[in-house]
Amino acid sequence: MKPRYGSQEDYAQAINELKKAFAGDEDAVSTNSDDLYSHGFSVNDYHPGASHTVIIYPTSTEDVVKVVKISTKYRMPIIAYSGGTSLEGQFRGYQSGGICLDMSRMNNIIEIHEADSDLVCQPGACWSDINDALREKKIPLFFPLDPAPTATIGGMLSTGCSGTNAVRYGTGKAEWFLNATVVLPSGEVIKTRRRARKSSAGFDTTKLFIGAEGTLGIVTEVTIRLTPLLPTAVAIVHFSDVRKATEAVREVTLSGVTIQCVELLDDLCMHALNQYGQSAEKWPEKDTLLFKFQGHNKASLAESGRVVEKIVARHGGFGFKFAKDDQEAEDLWETRKNALYAGLALISGSRAWSTDVCVPVSKLPELVYETKKDLASSGLVAPMAGHVGDGNFHAALLISNEKELEIARDIVSRMVHRAIALDGTWEHGVGIGKKDYLVEELGSGTVELMKLLKRTIDPLNLFNPGKVCIVLDLEPRRPR
Amino acid sequence: MKPRYGSQEDYAQAINELKKAFAGDEDAVSTNSDDLYSHGFSVNDYHPGASHTVIIYPTSTEDVVKVVKISTKYRMPIIAYSGGTSLEGQFRGYQSGGICLDMSRMNNIIEIHEADSDLVCQPGACWSDINDALREKKIPLFFPLDPAPTATIGGMLSTGCSGTNAVRYGTGKAEWFLNATVVLPSGEVIKTRRRARKSSAGFDTTKLFIGAEGTLGIVTEVTIRLTPLLPTAVAIVHFSDVRKATEAVREVTLSGVTIQCVELLDDLCMHALNQYGQSAEKWPEKDTLLFKFQGHNKASLAESGRVVEKIVARHGGFGFKFAKDDQEAEDLWETRKNALYAGLALISGSRAWSTDVCVPVSKLPELVYETKKDLASSGLVAPMAGHVGDGNFHAALLISNEKELEIARDIVSRMVHRAIALDGTWEHGVGIGKKDYLVEELGSGTVELMKLLKRTIDPLNLFNPGKVCIVLDLEPRRPR
Repeated sequence: MKPRYGSQEDYAQAINELKKAFAGDEDAVSTNSDDLYSHGFSVNDYHPGASHTVIIYPTSTEDVVKVVKISTKYRMPIIAYSGGTSLEGQFRGYQSGGICLDMSRMNNIIEIHEADSDLVCQPGACWSDINDALREKKIPLFFPLDPAPTATIGGMLSTGCSGTNAVRYGTGKAEWFLNATVVLPSGEVIKTRRRARKSSAGFDTTKLFIGAEGTLGIVTEVTIRLTPLLPTAVAIVHFSDVRKATEAVREVTLSGVTIQCVELLDDLCMHALNQYGQSAEKWPEKDTLLFKFQGHNKASLAESGRVVEKIVARHGGFGFKFAKDDQEAEDLWETRKNALYAGLALISGSRAWSTDVCVPVSKLPELVYETKKDLASSGLVAPMAGHVGDGNFHAALLISNEKELEIARDIVSRMVHRAIALDGTWEHGVGIGKKDYLVEELGSGTVELMKLLKRTIDPLNLFNPGKVCIVLDLEPRRPR
Repeated sequence: MKPRYGSQEDYAQAINELKKAFAGDEDAVSTNSDDLYSHGFSVNDYHPGASHTVIIYPTSTEDVVKVVKISTKYRMPIIAYSGGTSLEGQFRGYQSGGICLDMSRMNNIIEIHEADSDLVCQPGACWSDINDALREKKIPLFFPLDPAPTATIGGMLSTGCSGTNAVRYGTGKAEWFLNATVVLPSGEVIKTRRRARKSSAGFDTTKLFIGAEGTLGIVTEVTIRLTPLLPTAVAIVHFSDVRKATEAVREVTLSGVTIQCVELLDDLCMHALNQYGQSAEKWPEKDTLLFKFQGHNKASLAESGRVVEKIVARHGGFGFKFAKDDQEAEDLWETRKNALYAGLALISGSRAWSTDVCVPVSKLPELVYETKKDLASSGLVAPMAGHVGDGNFHAALLISNEKELEIARDIVSRMVHRAIALDGTWEHGVGIGKKDYLVEELGSGTVELMKLLKRTIDPLNLFNPGKVCIVLDLEPRRPR
């Protein structure tokens, strides 16, 4: 017998039961249509989907367990909503409707263990708020994963996120999430690991939920590892082409100078920034690297700057500028932060399809070159920026109409195929947007293993169905 | 119907079939009794076990698939043997016998991607050989996980190993193993991921096999990530007690000085080293820290030394000595490497039970203090050393007779319970030696999830049965 989802009548009963379960908490349940829509769609992507049927705002693990039990009873999909910044339709509503669990009321920092450099928080806590809180308390630590500023810990864990600091600190798949409390589809609550920095105690169940996008469990509490907040400095340098920039980055990496970030902004991106006019000066409209150095004091940062200046000069870098003070460093770094908005401003009224691919570092120039050629012949405008130290870049494809949307869809598809052909991958998770590429990238055996895990842990296919790996034999009949 | 293992007659047929399958390769199959014994037991631990029935030395993934199919046909357990350095009985023979897969002939480096800082190798390749090969080829990269010198990549992945460099580079559970080719119990071969440094493509199936100790699949090829080989320097400093040493390490970590290793050797360990007489000088017999610094040149290393010297002085450190050249640095570091042998030499003819626990850093002094008290009242001699930057230390309990072995067993048990009570864990994996502690540490829900994964991926319980998590309903009847 195939498992399948409840009918709309079942869902109506489920909602009644949810309202009873949360009686007295007037902010816990919403069926407001704007709410349903905004939680199920995203202005950040172009993937298909549907509205949710009901939104629940839990305040505790116990609340989540209650909701999971009702979802199971009525065979109603359950989809976690964290910061809402994901780009591949991760929190999209399911076709037959479902329960959206908005974690925004579970946004507390529970315990800060300064001496252990870790912190326990709820999944709705935003990484930038956590870092602000640490700064306010004068605790010289921070959490280094830095995706979109409003991303929250639950979603960051569930997508295995990264950010500009990944070249120094790695991604969410490294050891930044020390443990997670997870409500499983069975309703059971587990804590995956203890708080020590290392663990070799059996299968790595924490990692099972990293990148699972809420398909295997709902994360309700997380211990994150923190790292010392160190003095930084910023420098900018320009290159005649991306290959030389990549070679320079490689030599810088080998030099032993500590680099916290190294970001590539392409010629079009620099043009966009000049047009945007938020920088104090006009930049050469060339492929550009922005470095963020890390050191124990100003002297060591300046010394790192000198080492890097020599290296980039050897690779044809020009216009090297090392920010003379913190204000100038902040201004320079702001250039990177403005890149998306500057890009959007190139075509007034446009929207951006942000897409992201990652290849072994040596393949990056080829990937960028081929992608630029493809973009040029498509007629679309698409500034590119990237975490070049990891072989990773994204393009913001500017779109003003349906025709351009279709062109963009094709370009994205070709970018992904190209990256896979270069032994690479995409970024931003799978969601709906990338699931068709999963077999091409990983092979059917690995995807079958994922499906086996999914079927085993969530036999009713209620947790974020249709995301990550398609489980065909668990796909439901359309509701009546 | 319960799955169960084959009879001894079945196993005899399996061996015949294995011999046929490897006909012409005279080194592929061994039933030599010394060989069977040495692959099933270990001089490094005291756990129960049995000899294997047959040893296979595969040379390819295809060989492993052949063996897995025969193991399935005859319901014969299959246990991978890598460097043989694990301490918890990970490669112990199963009670009813089984096939041991010795990966020593699969020890090749297949491809070095210098520009991408990665390398593809077989599971029998030894990490120290890999680093030697890179040095010989003048490639300025290395693989930073450094457990026992003869440990090999397959076992290092399968136990989620770490080592002295973990404070700078993290453990095997971070992103050092980029992908793995794995033969599943079904006989299917999967490759878990591509070669790019980052991946957010679905569940992290690579991590599923890290720490699984061969219970979920046999690893036959691995892409490991390399990191720049940088200039280092070494310093030593002594403290009146371990709490002050821990506080100093914390402040050093926060200072921004790049530390590759920081090792604690306790007073007894220093006494043992003095007795051992391999050092150029006599050390104060006090709790001691050994630092390995990392920097881009000698000047920056010296500057790091000065920063650390000031910090340790503030915490009561004395006798700070910064190695004046590479030779002195090597000699100092040799002190750390000699610690185990020096410890053993304290009691002539003794053996060591090495055990290892890890707690949040702030709890380390308490753990060390309580353990020392326990050791003192037991009468056992046990020098301690540890990776103090990660809250991790091990004790070498010296044993000369059966009575002391039983005392040691109890002490180890108390150490583990103590670490768990401090929100910590043990190290060196689970194997046989630590599986009884798994529920206490992780809770029954998490262990049940592990068992569920094991049952799903290996429904016949043929892959290293009885290790990591006990699957009671899959335990076999004793063979006839």
